[in-house]
Amino acid sequence: MLREAIYHVPRDKWAYAYDPSTIHLRVRTKRDDVERVSALTGDKYDWQRTFVEIAMQKAASDELFDYWDAAVKPKYKRLSYIFKFTAGSESIYILDNGLSMTPPIPVAGYYEFPYIHEIDVFKVPEWAKEAIFYQIMPERFANGDPSNDPKGTVTWGSNPTRSTYFGGDLKGIMDHLDYLVDIGINAIYLTPIFLSPSYHKYDTIDYKRVDPHFGSNEDLKLLVKQCHDKGIRVILDAVFNHCSEQFPQFQDVLKNGGKSKYADWFHINTFPAEVKDGIPSYDTFGFFGNMPKFNTANPEVKQYLLDVAQYWIQEIQLDGWRLDVANEIDHHFWRDFRRVVKEANPDAYIVGEVWSDSLNWLMGDQFDSVMNYPFADKVVQFFSGGMDGYAFANSMGSLVMRYPQQTNEVVFNMLCSHDTPRLLTRLDNDKRRMKLAVVFLFTYMGTPCIFYGDEIGLTGQNDPDCRKSMEWDASKQDRELYDFYKLMINLRKAHAALREGRFRFLKADKNDPCIIYERSDDRIHYTIWMNNTAEKRTLTHPMDTSDWRDALSDVKVAPDKGMMNISLDPYGFRILFRQL
Amino acid sequence: MLREAIYHVPRDKWAYAYDPSTIHLRVRTKRDDVERVSALTGDKYDWQRTFVEIAMQKAASDELFDYWDAAVKPKYKRLSYIFKFTAGSESIYILDNGLSMTPPIPVAGYYEFPYIHEIDVFKVPEWAKEAIFYQIMPERFANGDPSNDPKGTVTWGSNPTRSTYFGGDLKGIMDHLDYLVDIGINAIYLTPIFLSPSYHKYDTIDYKRVDPHFGSNEDLKLLVKQCHDKGIRVILDAVFNHCSEQFPQFQDVLKNGGKSKYADWFHINTFPAEVKDGIPSYDTFGFFGNMPKFNTANPEVKQYLLDVAQYWIQEIQLDGWRLDVANEIDHHFWRDFRRVVKEANPDAYIVGEVWSDSLNWLMGDQFDSVMNYPFADKVVQFFSGGMDGYAFANSMGSLVMRYPQQTNEVVFNMLCSHDTPRLLTRLDNDKRRMKLAVVFLFTYMGTPCIFYGDEIGLTGQNDPDCRKSMEWDASKQDRELYDFYKLMINLRKAHAALREGRFRFLKADKNDPCIIYERSDDRIHYTIWMNNTAEKRTLTHPMDTSDWRDALSDVKVAPDKGMMNISLDPYGFRILFRQL
Repeated sequence: MLREAIYHVPRDKWAYAYDPSTIHLRVRTKRDDVERVSALTGDKYDWQRTFVEIAMQKAASDELFDYWDAAVKPKYKRLSYIFKFTAGSESIYILDNGLSMTPPIPVAGYYEFPYIHEIDVFKVPEWAKEAIFYQIMPERFANGDPSNDPKGTVTWGSNPTRSTYFGGDLKGIMDHLDYLVDIGINAIYLTPIFLSPSYHKYDTIDYKRVDPHFGSNEDLKLLVKQCHDKGIRVILDAVFNHCSEQFPQFQDVLKNGGKSKYADWFHINTFPAEVKDGIPSYDTFGFFGNMPKFNTANPEVKQYLLDVAQYWIQEIQLDGWRLDVANEIDHHFWRDFRRVVKEANPDAYIVGEVWSDSLNWLMGDQFDSVMNYPFADKVVQFFSGGMDGYAFANSMGSLVMRYPQQTNEVVFNMLCSHDTPRLLTRLDNDKRRMKLAVVFLFTYMGTPCIFYGDEIGLTGQNDPDCRKSMEWDASKQDRELYDFYKLMINLRKAHAALREGRFRFLKADKNDPCIIYERSDDRIHYTIWMNNTAEKRTLTHPMDTSDWRDALSDVKVAPDKGMMNISLDPYGFRILFRQL
Repeated sequence: MLREAIYHVPRDKWAYAYDPSTIHLRVRTKRDDVERVSALTGDKYDWQRTFVEIAMQKAASDELFDYWDAAVKPKYKRLSYIFKFTAGSESIYILDNGLSMTPPIPVAGYYEFPYIHEIDVFKVPEWAKEAIFYQIMPERFANGDPSNDPKGTVTWGSNPTRSTYFGGDLKGIMDHLDYLVDIGINAIYLTPIFLSPSYHKYDTIDYKRVDPHFGSNEDLKLLVKQCHDKGIRVILDAVFNHCSEQFPQFQDVLKNGGKSKYADWFHINTFPAEVKDGIPSYDTFGFFGNMPKFNTANPEVKQYLLDVAQYWIQEIQLDGWRLDVANEIDHHFWRDFRRVVKEANPDAYIVGEVWSDSLNWLMGDQFDSVMNYPFADKVVQFFSGGMDGYAFANSMGSLVMRYPQQTNEVVFNMLCSHDTPRLLTRLDNDKRRMKLAVVFLFTYMGTPCIFYGDEIGLTGQNDPDCRKSMEWDASKQDRELYDFYKLMINLRKAHAALREGRFRFLKADKNDPCIIYERSDDRIHYTIWMNNTAEKRTLTHPMDTSDWRDALSDVKVAPDKGMMNISLDPYGFRILFRQL
């Protein structure tokens, strides 16, 4: 056994309370190196009476490692534990003290999960586990009220630049709620809607006023009410890292310099606040002088922004917040943000924008979830031919082991967004590949999200091209693609196994981009077969029961002598299931 | 290069802000496997203009791994980074995305330290870096006022049981402050002193009243004032995990059951609160029915205890708290505790009692330090002949890599306490070995602490034996040992290099328990030579300058042809230095 590969720490995603009575333990070994792993557990104050040895399961694998997990329910909420690894006749133990070749004396130097405190348990909203999200840029979705269009609004359908206005607004969204209901959407994420000098509104002037180009505060209230009436939750974009340079408090700083009573609201490195040679004398989002960064450690600023977060939850019954540039704001702020938000709405869903490893914010005290860009990248890479099944399974295994299970259940899985090229474009405009990616999205763990228009075939390279206006001319919409999304969404919504069931790859081989995977709970067992190549392929896998049906056509599909053979068109797939 | 051994995560001790402008990065490789490691760093919003490649230093090693570190000062507070490992002609990169054999394109999939927020920077009190602590159990230290002795007080010097009273009190401590000053102590940690039915007082009845057997609240105030006048800081024991069963609110629960207004102050699993077959129906410390555990998530309880923490800081100018059973209290509580305590006294020192890996509490938002029991165990094991120099250096390397540098600078290093056998006893009553351990303690990183009486030769097995009454009869004190402690303490206090200088093992070999190590800053360079065997030994090490002196005798010690040869008695040592 490769000792250097063994890894565990008694904290974060490696040892955490899943609920007030259950601790999840995870440990890592070199891939295919260890036959059995068990957790030796007990209460350190009475080891003999409480000792339990628990066999751990292989939960995931990646290129280098196997990951094992176990759920432990300590009788007295306290847990001490070590791990035992076995390969052949060899056994190794790992404990807080280090590795040991002999069984260590209980409980000296053991790992500890000292006590499960309910207040520290990471709780995520249940509804997010059932949600099918739809991301809308209001300026680009639908123009319901031309009377509020900004000056210079272009014709709907024009090519967007970085400053084009199309006239989209909240009324436009309200006009198309039935469209969203029809396809199966039950949650919307709106990019920013508050007063702002830009079309994207990521630079806010007034956090309590809907931008008049989008409508009024009353319109927003009405939109959310209409959504709720139709079973759709709504989350908004909290742009709390920075504001617009036109934000009144920043204007005051520009005017009064260090004497402004708002001088400490921002990070002004040298007065006057100005931009020289492209470098602002104050901290900003990126190097954009028009987006001054808030000093969120200033109690006034913090109170100001927390009040905004609370205000909209109470004012319009908001269902949560997506947090812009979330990783550049301090942790003290986010801890208080969570407290304020969850007090206002215990069911609020908090999704951070963090592109890299986000565990720092996902231990129960800050966010519920993050936008899963690494997921999008790996799925797109796989279905565009960039890796084999083995590498793809490794990538997914690696990602699922990044976070505790709570987050995995509600991690915000998108395949593209306003900050990436469109999904169809990322997949070389090959709709067959796109469908494979969509099947994967809707049959995988996490909270899926569609970027507006993907479902009817919108294309586009990076910003601004990916932010085209929505296509509402049915003759120009890809209705077949729409129906496909609707089918997949309905399938996911109908079966908890596809949302929360156990996930496992059945086939994920080197030098072969075809995969088979399964999802199952105690009621239904799904297997999904994907030919991720340009040729016809027949995939085979042993199946010991014959009661399989096709989830889309409901025809029976039986194995032959215990072997299921599934013939697939190029980039074809099949979803089979059996009732348990 | 062994890829499975490479480890980094963009958080906790692996990537943290050391101060508002400096980020510390650490990365791990297989021991002796990699020749060079560098961090490729920059600002993701302008990589080209900000890119810096930084050579990392080998900071520590343990049995399996080398640990490399670097300090980075990002110009705009934001840092993206990857690591490059080189051995021979081979290079590997590691980034957030995984391992890569080719230089990854900036900055896709890079690790991020998104922004240094001063409010999130882990700050520890400066004075703790200079402190020489002395742990006192007031009941056992000195009886200054026989009039407050409890009924049944035994003769000073009797053998202690688990319920013996010796009559020690606060006046006794005041009487001996000059003793502490003489030996060089500048900080005291008192085990609990508040009203309690036990001699150890780890079961509190009234958190705002000094136990009358120890004196009055006024005595406590006077004691702290006298200490401060003599340059001695004082920290008290915060026993917030549990109270005494005689605590009035718990008595109310015993009396009124679920109807008590304090029913939620504790974790009552089933009413009535009672002990059956040795198992309480309520959560306790261990399984001790007389120590009911507080429900620190209850806002009233939290406020009650935080008020206690604040009260004593303000009332007597307390310098910090040692936290009893700290790991069994929730993290929300400790975060607010830190806030309250540091607001009351920004210089307060917060030391948790956690026996195993404590990083969960040491990331800047909870404790400053922990009682370093793993350190004590390894030092004692080494100087009692249980490991060779190589294993000892590995143990120390592993421990120093557990925590961020802030904690390493003030980690509470003891060699024994009221919860372990006495140091001299742990080392087979061999004073020579004890002196080696003491030399190590006072020439190592961290905040050293002496358990009362160790310095005059008190012995004792585990509780109750280790809690003997202090020996004040000078003829029964080991005055030679006392002088030795005094010498070592004064040496440490005189030279910052011994407190905060760079530490490195120069000799730590397999199958040889003799070691040489160095500590140095920009003013002085120490080398410490230890013969940890029962035979005479001559240790040699190359030295390229000849201006060394013995730190205790001040005699010149010169190398011979570039080789320093130091002859040592059995369990002998020598401390050499040169001015830089």
